Amino acid sequence: MQDRIYLDNNATTKVDPLVENMMEPYFCKHYGNPNSLHKFGTETHPIITQALDKLYEGIHANNEDDIIITSCATESNNWVLKSMYFDAYLKHGKDHIITTEVEHPAVHATCEFLESVGMRVTYLPINEHGTIAASQVAEAITDKTALVSVMWANNETGLIFPIEEIGQVCKQRGVLFHSDGVQAIGKIPVDVQKAQVDFLSFSAHKFHGPKGVGGLYIRSGVDLTPLLHGGEHMRGRRSGTLNVPYIIGMGEAMKLAQQNLDYEREVVGGLRDKLEDALLEIKDVSVIGDRIKRVPNTTLVSVRGIEGEAMLWDLNRANIAASTGSACASEDLKANPVMVAIGADVELAHTAVRFSLSRFNTIQEIDRTIEVFKKAVKRLRNISSSYGLN
Amino acid sequence: MQDRIYLDNNATTKVDPLVENMMEPYFCKHYGNPNSLHKFGTETHPIITQALDKLYEGIHANNEDDIIITSCATESNNWVLKSMYFDAYLKHGKDHIITTEVEHPAVHATCEFLESVGMRVTYLPINEHGTIAASQVAEAITDKTALVSVMWANNETGLIFPIEEIGQVCKQRGVLFHSDGVQAIGKIPVDVQKAQVDFLSFSAHKFHGPKGVGGLYIRSGVDLTPLLHGGEHMRGRRSGTLNVPYIIGMGEAMKLAQQNLDYEREVVGGLRDKLEDALLEIKDVSVIGDRIKRVPNTTLVSVRGIEGEAMLWDLNRANIAASTGSACASEDLKANPVMVAIGADVELAHTAVRFSLSRFNTIQEIDRTIEVFKKAVKRLRNISSSYGLN
Repeated sequence: MQDRIYLDNNATTKVDPLVENMMEPYFCKHYGNPNSLHKFGTETHPIITQALDKLYEGIHANNEDDIIITSCATESNNWVLKSMYFDAYLKHGKDHIITTEVEHPAVHATCEFLESVGMRVTYLPINEHGTIAASQVAEAITDKTALVSVMWANNETGLIFPIEEIGQVCKQRGVLFHSDGVQAIGKIPVDVQKAQVDFLSFSAHKFHGPKGVGGLYIRSGVDLTPLLHGGEHMRGRRSGTLNVPYIIGMGEAMKLAQQNLDYEREVVGGLRDKLEDALLEIKDVSVIGDRIKRVPNTTLVSVRGIEGEAMLWDLNRANIAASTGSACASEDLKANPVMVAIGADVELAHTAVRFSLSRFNTIQEIDRTIEVFKKAVKRLRNISSSYGLN
Repeated sequence: MQDRIYLDNNATTKVDPLVENMMEPYFCKHYGNPNSLHKFGTETHPIITQALDKLYEGIHANNEDDIIITSCATESNNWVLKSMYFDAYLKHGKDHIITTEVEHPAVHATCEFLESVGMRVTYLPINEHGTIAASQVAEAITDKTALVSVMWANNETGLIFPIEEIGQVCKQRGVLFHSDGVQAIGKIPVDVQKAQVDFLSFSAHKFHGPKGVGGLYIRSGVDLTPLLHGGEHMRGRRSGTLNVPYIIGMGEAMKLAQQNLDYEREVVGGLRDKLEDALLEIKDVSVIGDRIKRVPNTTLVSVRGIEGEAMLWDLNRANIAASTGSACASEDLKANPVMVAIGADVELAHTAVRFSLSRFNTIQEIDRTIEVFKKAVKRLRNISSSYGLN
């Protein structure tokens, strides 16, 4: 087990053992329902407050803003987008949403659903750099636009989107702005005030917290019809008994993520660069997106002549975990959508392999990965039907 | 800590240490995303399958049926109800839902929301026994009725609703039938096939599993627009990265709940009866609902002349946790809604105290609770402004 190498941290991460330690007493010992009036309930309040404070600090939220705990970023994304149906479309006739063509399925599929019930969605195409410009958003906004939803960083390429510029455009035009921050938190600084976002989605399991808990930042004064109606949890904005251990865990994971931002940039980024440099030495290998415009942990590599799945298989046999892109769509073997959007030919778009590192990776692991990858390229190109023919 | 007594198991339960043990390796060790194609992902598949099997057995679901993991019963309830807006109302003009006036806020508040967007909801009144008759459902059904939603057992009184009879009515009339089974699972046998429900909601934390995970049973062949769109998790019915530890935990909790059903009826029921008998010896104390028609762990006691909150306070000072009713609405000090519905006068409706036991309670704890309760009645009636005056 010890020699397994995990380089798929954009899919999910190991729970930091410090996080697990903090959660542990809240399963069998302090198991009260925080909404109960007795000690079993109230004794959980201080540590929940501490956890929320860590979340506020982590994304630089204002005290007056809300951070509502959800079950994951998928819920947060669905919540913001579907509320537009009730809050903007039914009430005010605003039927238009602007997003990009490379959003996570939680945004993309939800937008398609909203189209099926009468809303209109503009999917902004990404440019040759794999991102969009704020000017594209500005041009797409009409007086029917309810929301702009743009991811902070892309899950596949790691490319960072110009959130501050888009935030400024949205503010000027009086349009609500949502960002799916899932791939940014823990990798680069995220400041909701500076970026002027109204909503920010995040998931603990992408920054060494547990799977099954996330959050939605909501700027002070912004209304949003609940996705989950019910009891008066979370000030009535999101019902459901609080997941006390995971809230505590997500708070601690956020604190640790912030503390490790320098380490992420310098050490994790350094390991990623080392890996990338070594792979780029191989003939006909390319990397998607300027390194400087990406989060520090991600590299999306294309190896001409080798199907991404074939490479994954060789890596997997050597106990190295990587991916061809989003785990959330791993069951269909379509061409990598970001690569297609960038303009890669179809053959190349099937060759993508994503490595996504974390602070738990070591230089020894990277050395071994380079070695295994090089051998795999040799082996697979030897048996490739397409490579070398043209 | 050891001498604390927890009698608020309808609000939430202690995670069974056996459940915690099973979850533990899936935080820091086997942390892969089940949707990933590499070993970190695939190694989680067998235990997830086992957990799902335990859920199927626990509620007697058919292999062809779906059990979809959600973040809690609140999500499951919202999902079923809100999908009626899209699937029945928008598509087929069926705008009518039938429910009861004593549902959990997750059903009640969602119905109110649906009314605000154009649907019609019939809230069936409960009878003097604290429940409803299947004939009431039959009378309320029209050709515009999309769904009947009736809880399996009431959270406050523990009274069991005639689910099988209602199931029969719904089947005969071709109307979808949903039951919020939160308070039934682990307390009484729940058989979705016998009851002919199309949807059943449940939450792990009510049967010694973790908070923040639940499920929705969906009968084979029944369509339901997702509440959470996104990646292709759970066969596309509910997106979001799987909460592996909690799914495993919920499965094990369900298995243990089934294994303990006899114990629940005989031992937990016996302890409840002992508590209830002792409290009924006190003058002007009454209990809501026939004992035989209740789940075995619950008693809702009314003590004339004593506010429920005052009694809770005395119990809490003695380290005994009980409640005045649903923890999900504990922040507003309204009269107990079930007691009001049964027809209690307003004063009496403020006197309710609910004890809800579990398999972790002991006879010593019940003896001590009886002692503390009796002393509290004496003390509080002595200072009561209302008691003894009339």
